[in-house]
Parts: sequence; C-alpha cells; structure tokens
Amino acid sequence: MRESYHDELNANTDDIVSMADLVRSAVERATTSLINADLGLAEQVISADARIDTLHDEIEQRSFNLLARQAPVAGELRTVVAVLRMCYELSRMGDLAVHVAETARHRYPDHAVPEPVAAQFTRMAKIADQMILTASQTLVNRDAENARELADKDTAIDDIRADQFRMLLSDTWPYGVEEAVDTALLGRYYERIADHAVAIGSRIIYIVTGEAPEGEDWPKVF
Amino acid sequence: MRESYHDELNANTDDIVSMADLVRSAVERATTSLINADLGLAEQVISADARIDTLHDEIEQRSFNLLARQAPVAGELRTVVAVLRMCYELSRMGDLAVHVAETARHRYPDHAVPEPVAAQFTRMAKIADQMILTASQTLVNRDAENARELADKDTAIDDIRADQFRMLLSDTWPYGVEEAVDTALLGRYYERIADHAVAIGSRIIYIVTGEAPEGEDWPKVF
Repeated sequence: MRESYHDELNANTDDIVSMADLVRSAVERATTSLINADLGLAEQVISADARIDTLHDEIEQRSFNLLARQAPVAGELRTVVAVLRMCYELSRMGDLAVHVAETARHRYPDHAVPEPVAAQFTRMAKIADQMILTASQTLVNRDAENARELADKDTAIDDIRADQFRMLLSDTWPYGVEEAVDTALLGRYYERIADHAVAIGSRIIYIVTGEAPEGEDWPKVF
Repeated sequence: MRESYHDELNANTDDIVSMADLVRSAVERATTSLINADLGLAEQVISADARIDTLHDEIEQRSFNLLARQAPVAGELRTVVAVLRMCYELSRMGDLAVHVAETARHRYPDHAVPEPVAAQFTRMAKIADQMILTASQTLVNRDAENARELADKDTAIDDIRADQFRMLLSDTWPYGVEEAVDTALLGRYYERIADHAVAIGSRIIYIVTGEAPEGEDWPKVF
C-alpha cells in the first residue's frame, strides 16, 4: 500500500511535468502559427489541447483518490493540494495558447498581427517558455529559490505589454482597429500565461517551505 | 471533535457565500464606476478586493486543516476539494472586477467606454450578477439542477460579446482605437467572470452527483 501510495504521488509529479511540456509546445506552436499565419499549425494546437485537459482530469482524480484512501499529512498533503491547483493553472495556460491559435485561424490567410507586434509576441512567448520550464524543473527539484525567479521574468513580460500599449494607443499607430484589438487581447493571453507560471512558482514555494511567498516583489498570483 | 469538524465544513460554505456576496458587490460597483466615470467608487472596488483575498486564504487554510486533521471521505471530501477550487474562482472574479474598476480609474475623468457599449456592459454585469447569486444559492441548497442554468446564462453573455465585436470591428465604429481596445479587454473580463461562475456551477454538480457535468451544452470550464 505504501509503495503504491508513493507511486501515485510520483505519478502526479510526472503528469504535471508532462502537462508543462505539452503547454510549452502549445505556446511555442501557437506563437509560430500566429507569426507565420500557419493554419495547419494553429489547428494542431487547438486539437492537441484535449490531451492537456485529460491530464488535468487524471491528476485531479488521482489526487482525490490519494486524499480519500491515504489521508496524507504535512508535506505530502501540501504537495497533493498544490498539485490540484497547479494542474488547473496548466490547463488554463493550454486554453490561452488555444486562444492565440484561434486568433491566427480566425484571421487566416491574413496575418493577425503586424510585424513589429509579432516581434513582441515572439519575445513574450520565449520568456513564457522559460518560465514554464523553470516552474516544471523547480517542482521536480523542490527548489524554492529558483521558483522565486519567476516573478522577475513575469515583470519582463509586463514591460513588453506596456510598450505594446503605448505603441498601439499612440497617434502614429499605422494599423487599424482590428489589429489593435487583436494585439490587446493577445497581449492579455500571454500576460495570463506568465501569471499562471508565477502562480505555479508560488505553489512550489508553498510545498517546500509550508508558507506562501510574500512581499513587494512577489505579485499576487491567484 | 466531530462537532467542530462540521462547524468547520459549515464555515467553509458560509465563507464561500460571503465571497460570492462581496464579488457581486464588486462587479456591480465596478460596472457603475465604469459607466459613470466614478473615480471614488472605482477606488472602493480596488481597495475592497483585499477582503475577498483574505477570505480565499482563510478558506484554503481551513480546508487544508480539515484534510490534515479529519481526513474526510466521500461527499465531504468532494465538498472540501470543490471548495478549494471555488474560492480560487471567486478570488479571480474579484480580480476581474478590479480590472474593470482600474480601467474606469485609468480613463478618469473621461468615460472609458462610449454610451452604446456602456449599455452592453450594464447587461453583461446584470447577467453575471444573477449567475453569481445562482451559484451561491445552489451551493447552499446542494441543487445540481439549478446549477445547470449557469451554462445558459453564460451563452447570453457570449452573445452580447459577439455583438460587441461586430460593432467595434465594423466600418461604422465611430470611436477610436483606444475605445475599441478598452471595450475588447473589458468584454474579456466580463466573459471570464461568467466563465468562473459556470465553473463554480460545475463544481456544485460534482459535489452533489459525484460526477462532473458533460455534454455539448456544458462548456469546458477550467
């Protein structure tokens, strides 16, 4: 029974890592589909989201069974509760990647965003990718210090988004309302993907230390 | 011990209802601050969000203690796990109301949205208010059937948002890029508030029936 119990706890961690890998792939491919107006790739991202959702459901069911049958306490209970939240965060990140891909599909064969904006989204996607990787690695390594880096990277994405707003609301914005609206909403999706990665970092710090991170530097991460 | 246990379970439900009341007030006042360009009201909504976050933290801590000390099973375990998710959904709804209020504050003394758009947000806010009330009441009454109504109301909000997009992307949109961007983002906030209410409904159905709702009519509600 105890062996199976630890197998189940490890399966939860493995599945969170698998979800993180799938989300990284989804964000990267959704961004490529957006930049290149690649309809086929956008549709792949959209259909691949079901696998992320299935992992969410499996983790939730396994966590429920662990709580019901094993009544974990202390650090193991913290891990099960944190994993329940993390699998939700990752499923939301997958949904947000789908929204990016849907925008690419909706505007196809046009490009949804003009070139200068595309360059910003490429940078945001790259930072987000690093954040998801950091979150996943720090869970495996139980590394609260590295998890704290996520808040800094989140600031970098917020800064790009602030630049983007200045650009699209300036008098010299050379594109139309549609491009501005798509850019604003896409920026929101990337911002939320990063927020969820920070929230995962917060949960890892909670698993390791038993305390939620606090302070000015740490954003509110619901 | 058992009496205290049920007191704690009841306190969780009471606190979810309190959060729902605070979120209804936040959405209603944020919407009024938006429509009337009322800076003082916007700032009230922003500062009042701390109370919602405190309730979130208290519910989470109490749920953790319940799991650690009481090891609930079956329906009570489902309730504790569902409450953990619901308190998160409600804290996110509070954050989204804050985003609405921040938009009103950012554009003050101007009105952030033009009159025809304001009327749409008034309608969306009213539907969202009914949805949050329904979610709260169905939790207290353990009423899976009424929880199912939430999906229909969510569709009504999505329809208003689709109208709004057609309006702001038409050649006859008489306002500027800034108004279009604000409208698109605000629409996203209201859409997400409604999505969270649907997700709460889904959790209530799970508490009552032991199964997540499924089928074409039920939106994916992560």
